[in-house]
Amino acid sequence: MARPVTLFTGQWADLPLEELAEKAGRWGFDGLELACWGDHFEVDRALAEDDYAGSIQEILERNHLNCFALGAHLVGQAVCDQIDDRHRGILPPDVWGNGDPEGVRQRAAERMKDTARAAARFGVQQVNGFTGSAIWHLLYSFPPNDFAEIERGYEDFAERWSPIIDMFDSEGVRFGLEVHPTEIAYDFVTTRKTLDAIGNREGFGINLDPSHFAHQSLDTAQFALEFHDRIYHVHVKDSRKRLDGRRSILGSHINFGEEARGWDFVSPGHGDVDFEELFRALNRIGYTGPLSIEWEDSGMDREWGAQDALAYVRRTDFAPSAVAFDAAMQRA
Amino acid sequence: MARPVTLFTGQWADLPLEELAEKAGRWGFDGLELACWGDHFEVDRALAEDDYAGSIQEILERNHLNCFALGAHLVGQAVCDQIDDRHRGILPPDVWGNGDPEGVRQRAAERMKDTARAAARFGVQQVNGFTGSAIWHLLYSFPPNDFAEIERGYEDFAERWSPIIDMFDSEGVRFGLEVHPTEIAYDFVTTRKTLDAIGNREGFGINLDPSHFAHQSLDTAQFALEFHDRIYHVHVKDSRKRLDGRRSILGSHINFGEEARGWDFVSPGHGDVDFEELFRALNRIGYTGPLSIEWEDSGMDREWGAQDALAYVRRTDFAPSAVAFDAAMQRA
Amino acid sequence: MARPVTLFTGQWADLPLEELAEKAGRWGFDGLELACWGDHFEVDRALAEDDYAGSIQEILERNHLNCFALGAHLVGQAVCDQIDDRHRGILPPDVWGNGDPEGVRQRAAERMKDTARAAARFGVQQVNGFTGSAIWHLLYSFPPNDFAEIERGYEDFAERWSPIIDMFDSEGVRFGLEVHPTEIAYDFVTTRKTLDAIGNREGFGINLDPSHFAHQSLDTAQFALEFHDRIYHVHVKDSRKRLDGRRSILGSHINFGEEARGWDFVSPGHGDVDFEELFRALNRIGYTGPLSIEWEDSGMDREWGAQDALAYVRRTDFAPSAVAFDAAMQRA
Amino acid sequence: MARPVTLFTGQWADLPLEELAEKAGRWGFDGLELACWGDHFEVDRALAEDDYAGSIQEILERNHLNCFALGAHLVGQAVCDQIDDRHRGILPPDVWGNGDPEGVRQRAAERMKDTARAAARFGVQQVNGFTGSAIWHLLYSFPPNDFAEIERGYEDFAERWSPIIDMFDSEGVRFGLEVHPTEIAYDFVTTRKTLDAIGNREGFGINLDPSHFAHQSLDTAQFALEFHDRIYHVHVKDSRKRLDGRRSILGSHINFGEEARGWDFVSPGHGDVDFEELFRALNRIGYTGPLSIEWEDSGMDREWGAQDALAYVRRTDFAPSAVAFDAAMQRA
Amino acid sequence: MARPVTLFTGQWADLPLEELAEKAGRWGFDGLELACWGDHFEVDRALAEDDYAGSIQEILERNHLNCFALGAHLVGQAVCDQIDDRHRGILPPDVWGNGDPEGVRQRAAERMKDTARAAARFGVQQVNGFTGSAIWHLLYSFPPNDFAEIERGYEDFAERWSPIIDMFDSEGVRFGLEVHPTEIAYDFVTTRKTLDAIGNREGFGINLDPSHFAHQSLDTAQFALEFHDRIYHVHVKDSRKRLDGRRSILGSHINFGEEARGWDFVSPGHGDVDFEELFRALNRIGYTGPLSIEWEDSGMDREWGAQDALAYVRRTDFAPSAVAFDAAMQRA
Amino acid sequence: MARPVTLFTGQWADLPLEELAEKAGRWGFDGLELACWGDHFEVDRALAEDDYAGSIQEILERNHLNCFALGAHLVGQAVCDQIDDRHRGILPPDVWGNGDPEGVRQRAAERMKDTARAAARFGVQQVNGFTGSAIWHLLYSFPPNDFAEIERGYEDFAERWSPIIDMFDSEGVRFGLEVHPTEIAYDFVTTRKTLDAIGNREGFGINLDPSHFAHQSLDTAQFALEFHDRIYHVHVKDSRKRLDGRRSILGSHINFGEEARGWDFVSPGHGDVDFEELFRALNRIGYTGPLSIEWEDSGMDREWGAQDALAYVRRTDFAPSAVAFDAAMQRA
Repeated sequence: MARPVTLFTGQWADLPLEELAEKAGRWGFDGLELACWGDHFEVDRALAEDDYAGSIQEILERNHLNCFALGAHLVGQAVCDQIDDRHRGILPPDVWGNGDPEGVRQRAAERMKDTARAAARFGVQQVNGFTGSAIWHLLYSFPPNDFAEIERGYEDFAERWSPIIDMFDSEGVRFGLEVHPTEIAYDFVTTRKTLDAIGNREGFGINLDPSHFAHQSLDTAQFALEFHDRIYHVHVKDSRKRLDGRRSILGSHINFGEEARGWDFVSPGHGDVDFEELFRALNRIGYTGPLSIEWEDSGMDREWGAQDALAYVRRTDFAPSAVAFDAAMQRA
Repeated sequence: MARPVTLFTGQWADLPLEELAEKAGRWGFDGLELACWGDHFEVDRALAEDDYAGSIQEILERNHLNCFALGAHLVGQAVCDQIDDRHRGILPPDVWGNGDPEGVRQRAAERMKDTARAAARFGVQQVNGFTGSAIWHLLYSFPPNDFAEIERGYEDFAERWSPIIDMFDSEGVRFGLEVHPTEIAYDFVTTRKTLDAIGNREGFGINLDPSHFAHQSLDTAQFALEFHDRIYHVHVKDSRKRLDGRRSILGSHINFGEEARGWDFVSPGHGDVDFEELFRALNRIGYTGPLSIEWEDSGMDREWGAQDALAYVRRTDFAPSAVAFDAAMQRA
Repeated sequence: MARPVTLFTGQWADLPLEELAEKAGRWGFDGLELACWGDHFEVDRALAEDDYAGSIQEILERNHLNCFALGAHLVGQAVCDQIDDRHRGILPPDVWGNGDPEGVRQRAAERMKDTARAAARFGVQQVNGFTGSAIWHLLYSFPPNDFAEIERGYEDFAERWSPIIDMFDSEGVRFGLEVHPTEIAYDFVTTRKTLDAIGNREGFGINLDPSHFAHQSLDTAQFALEFHDRIYHVHVKDSRKRLDGRRSILGSHINFGEEARGWDFVSPGHGDVDFEELFRALNRIGYTGPLSIEWEDSGMDREWGAQDALAYVRRTDFAPSAVAFDAAMQRA
Repeated sequence: MARPVTLFTGQWADLPLEELAEKAGRWGFDGLELACWGDHFEVDRALAEDDYAGSIQEILERNHLNCFALGAHLVGQAVCDQIDDRHRGILPPDVWGNGDPEGVRQRAAERMKDTARAAARFGVQQVNGFTGSAIWHLLYSFPPNDFAEIERGYEDFAERWSPIIDMFDSEGVRFGLEVHPTEIAYDFVTTRKTLDAIGNREGFGINLDPSHFAHQSLDTAQFALEFHDRIYHVHVKDSRKRLDGRRSILGSHINFGEEARGWDFVSPGHGDVDFEELFRALNRIGYTGPLSIEWEDSGMDREWGAQDALAYVRRTDFAPSAVAFDAAMQRA
Repeated sequence: MARPVTLFTGQWADLPLEELAEKAGRWGFDGLELACWGDHFEVDRALAEDDYAGSIQEILERNHLNCFALGAHLVGQAVCDQIDDRHRGILPPDVWGNGDPEGVRQRAAERMKDTARAAARFGVQQVNGFTGSAIWHLLYSFPPNDFAEIERGYEDFAERWSPIIDMFDSEGVRFGLEVHPTEIAYDFVTTRKTLDAIGNREGFGINLDPSHFAHQSLDTAQFALEFHDRIYHVHVKDSRKRLDGRRSILGSHINFGEEARGWDFVSPGHGDVDFEELFRALNRIGYTGPLSIEWEDSGMDREWGAQDALAYVRRTDFAPSAVAFDAAMQRA
Repeated sequence: MARPVTLFTGQWADLPLEELAEKAGRWGFDGLELACWGDHFEVDRALAEDDYAGSIQEILERNHLNCFALGAHLVGQAVCDQIDDRHRGILPPDVWGNGDPEGVRQRAAERMKDTARAAARFGVQQVNGFTGSAIWHLLYSFPPNDFAEIERGYEDFAERWSPIIDMFDSEGVRFGLEVHPTEIAYDFVTTRKTLDAIGNREGFGINLDPSHFAHQSLDTAQFALEFHDRIYHVHVKDSRKRLDGRRSILGSHINFGEEARGWDFVSPGHGDVDFEELFRALNRIGYTGPLSIEWEDSGMDREWGAQDALAYVRRTDFAPSAVAFDAAMQRA
């Protein structure tokens, strides 16, 4: 196989890094994409404590693991969102503070800058995450949307994230938005608008996760080709539609894992994503970074699944050809 | 054909009722479903002016049109919604008032009660409309939803609409929620929850509109069978998916009629709705009310389309059989 | 349009021929395929009463109707069947007699010979019908079938029908088996075996009815091409699959018209049959006989449906081309 | 993997149990579902000989195999069937006796009671099998069915099986009907009717075999959810449709393995059954019993296939999740 | 309906224009697209005889027909083709001359210039036709293509057609290539290359004919959107795939109309083309020119078909909307 | 597994046989299908040098490899083709000679006779290859084809290949045409015509390669059944359609491996070919020869792919059953 396979630690934050790293190493992963929550990668300690980064590095090395990227989804989400009580549950107490929405947004923005600095100190050049969105809730709107307000949502995003990306640039780190419903960009149209809004600057790219595309009927391989110069990181995660005329594609306001849902996340290779097509597209655009398994399947044992997913990626990812075949049929 | 075919006037509110009624009568419609906006049916005048209802009735009769239902979508929307600037555009000034959200919601609720009284005075027993929803914006949520909050949304709906339905009951009028994204009910799961929340009382039923089901991959005919005793009114409206791997089923925060959308409304018979299957289901459940064409297609001339839709319904709707066929093959 | 369109009267046997002929003529049919039950065409009277055939002819002519074929399904069914109480309901009392199975079969065979004679006297050269089958009940068998017994079923058919076809031959009349589950032939395989069993003699052909093919996933147009020299008559009847994972294609031992069935008969053009493909195949094989509408749809009003079906056939059936197009592009 | 995987021995009755057990153990099966024919499990000896059960148990243990269920399909079939010569081939001589139909049915019923007793003595609480059916042959009927006769078929079943299930209850053994065409229940509708007919009593449940559902276009996973409290045992067997417009879904009265058939049984994972969906449904309903491979594929070597099937089940069956994922994304 | 509907006369060249015009007028066409062969429009006479154009015009006017375009497919084909005996059959004798390939090509090019002049004299600003291609025969090539040779094919096209288009420009007439297999452009890729090769000049556009796209699996509506500023004329013609695993999409070297072909031309509305989608795209790009029926269906009577096609276009083509619907739902 | 798996060396002609044989042996192949180009199998040396065959044999044996067939595609192509510059690249210089077309064709024919003699001397009874075609370029023709010319193409083939096959017969070697677009036979229709043209003689059969069927929508398994007595050798190669309405099935005159192509070759198991269905058909017709992997996938590393393909074939190919299953359910 051609690319390193890592495990995103976000869904394992209930386990201490020590324990998770030991498992991942034993299962044969090449590295971890460390989540900036739980004790996996603590931004404040990384900046405050001289030996913190080294102690994390030591755990990784002991288990023969690399780290190519950090995951800063939770704090990033708060930068543009209309803040409410749900955010209290996902933010560090000092970012939440008194919960005043604009204050939360600004503290989250500062913490994202810190994350760039911490990543640089840790020796990692890629931070993935969410941006939040001031306009997500207007997705399907009645009363009818004022589409000027939609445009203002992209402007708001650009205003809040440009200074953050300035910091990323100065630290030599790149940000990868995980294009995802609930974020400022979630499909082809909104990704184009988002990249345009922020001036198509190099510091702001994409963490491509096909599980958020499949249930929208989007073709992730074509997405990779179209935004080829902004694909900075790739998640391996899958989703599956189960539409029978009674289940809605919209979700029914019920939780993942409910039988009545029209779509759900599943372990890679068990859903609708065409990973071979995606990997061929990644070959075509020359992507050589990690394939990072973000494992989530409410119907499968987590440890069984992580290993199944790793085996699946190993046998599906392959290097591109270096031979032109009809040429080989010419006489020598 | 078996059932009267009416035209919902909501999308024609730019025309005076006089003019629209003349057209609809000439095209061959059996009646109008009058919108409670524009000058089509003004609730306040119906209650205040003794001869108002008669003057509307006279316009209808002159054009050989009946009225089986009113459409009160705009005010109904404000009863449960989180009110913002978009609502100012759709509400009568006295309902909007100073725009204070809770005040708007309460004034909207009172106006819905008035609508029941006005309908009764006008001699119509069916009012269709929207309910709004306190939780619609949590459709696909990150940070993760607190699902107890979702449940509170249904309770809020029940608290606000129960007194309204009391008034409907006392006036002998029934309400039909148009099951629709952005409302408290928009699919099988949420309709069941909504009907349960309000105690499955007879005064609160459904205005079935298949155009809001098709793009969700829902089967409207099965919906009619499952909620057969609450199907009080039926809209004939169509929608069409155009999914090519680049258009999202979610809408991309762009307006109807944009080429890049993954689905859109179209004139009946030009989309994904299986109307024959739906009409067979209506036969099976014994629905004998109107088929009310709500016409919306951003790519077709409105007047050409209304006539095309009428012809389509006339040739698609048929009465059920009264003969058992194998029995007819018995010898006489 | 190219071919006469007739109405098979079997499903209208509750109406006197006088009344039905008046309707069919008014609706615009070109003729009737008279069922040999009810008072539509009575075989015994046609042989016994000199003026009977003329009286029927007179009714037809008065309504501008032709007759190209008789339908003798009910008696034909009893020739090979394992007789039980169900047959009493479909047989004339003198054919049923005391109900002794072998006696019933032999009396039915004699009545089929009479039918050929009556048809000849009436001036009609085509009789359609069923054959029955000694082995139909072994369709899906556990305990496992003895396949020699299956072969004996085809032999039994040939023994019983050969003398009948001798009479048809001598009267200049042809028999058309309606290939149909419950009969000796119901698909490609069994039709080939059936025709082989009876020596591929000309007197025994096929009344092609696509409604019995569609739910079996069979392609009627290909059937017409394969058995092109035995397609003696064509029924226009439709069926529709409604498979959703809960409805079985096998029928669930419930009656036609039940919501839970996996397939059902429907009015022509409302189901799965590809009539244009079938009509193109009929053009290709040079079939110029009638298209006879056998109307059965438990969800549609019978009279609405018969007229809808006639209009459907008129606009779908067309003559083949007499022009080679690229040739027309040669210079004159 | 989560559940024990066993091999149903019915299709290997030509091999002595000694030989088959040795193979199955070597291939890695967890156990055998012993057929009550051949020398695999002999009901009469189990009741008559004190050491018989022990001798079978010894063979199993020596090969590291368990037994969770017996298969008593052949005798069970005769309890309700209209008996004919085919049954002689599948019944023990003393059950067949003189072949008098009612006598055969009653002797078969007694033998089923004995089977419950023998199972109890052998220490097994589950017996799978067929019921037969007095009405199967009326599946697609012309002349038209008298549907009262169909209802009488369910009553006949209940009368014949209730005393048998009384014995099962008293022995602490449960019966699992393999829902299957040719039996009293073969789909959703008929299973509901069957369970109702016998009073939904606990002693009578289902041996779920998806191979009999796929060719009917039925969704086995939904079946498992709907009848969740009666799923007592599960077969792993597959079938495949090969419909090309010339092959009928009905079977053409030709044997399994013929090229011209429209569907056929195949080795698990090589057909239309969605086993992952089924296993997820089994997880959801908490089924922890065996997955018993009933191997039948007329186009594959039996021993190659049994091992392929075992490997397929091992890599497809997984334990359900014990983690709520969004919860893991909350800060620690 | 919104656009004039014309009949392309190329497939009717066996009829004198007098006779064809009378038929077309009676059937209700709005005009004719005159083929430059037969006696429909003779280029040499139009240039040589002062009253020729007027005499044609008179025939049209007498039948209430317009002419919006000429069809010059046959001569155009010879401009780039590798000439062989097939061309003799489609060329005027003086263009064919002695059949020397380069001479034929040059004489054909001159005749195309004449066609522009004749069209201008006749008062028509649009000429449709073919270009031929030096490389078509290399479509699927073994031995492997030298792709530099392919590129030379586009250059050859540009060299030969640029002087012709100069003449078109100077006469104020535009050329519309019917994108079509056997021509220099036949799909998205080759059309882009062709337009680029000739400098995207305005004088060279497209006669869009969807029947040549459908069997290639191309989406004509998307083609119309992509090349929106070069869609100068539109043919209404249909084709149908009949792929069953035995018929090749490539044509089997057999003629149109053969049963064994994998695809064939059919009357509009009887094939795979999604005309509504195409017409909506034409609305979107503002195309207001004629819809010209090119009628070809080897299985349908030509005159029945022409009328059927006209009716089909009339009921399928509609004007775009001038109303924004949600806006109409705002209160007046 | 049942059949030997070999590697066709044509796409590896850039590697010396020594090196390739070492790799193939190490990967686990059972043999090589040697291409008659590069240094893999040199026909002239095999005839001229007494020890040549032995030296090749020695290389194979050292690596535990067999040889069941030679591949002589390049020279065979020139036998019927219209020769042009592309052929110079694929022919040995002495066959090309001065490039005079008829001379090339005759020298190629002689070399094919030599190939039969060399194969016999080498001890191999099967030579696979191409035939070329005088009419391939008329595949989709405008101006319209003269279909008599098409027929002459088959005659030309028969005239040129009959003497070659005479030599094959006399050497006890059989030829297998790889049915393939650009050859005289490429689908069902043209294969039937080709075999008829050459008198269905035994010396001329088929090298069945499914990759050339899938993109034509042809069913390779049905092809194997229809031409069962002429299937002499089987290639394992795959192709994949990627049709999105913008990519043409025809190829766009662009090379394999281009993103814009509508179909392309891919590694076995990664495309549209249903290999299990094919292998079952091969079991049914009793084919016991090699499955020869012809590996070509422009998006995958060649060495990774060859091993992946071998593993895929090993786990997909299985022996047929020797047991009748229902029989096993009879009592012993």
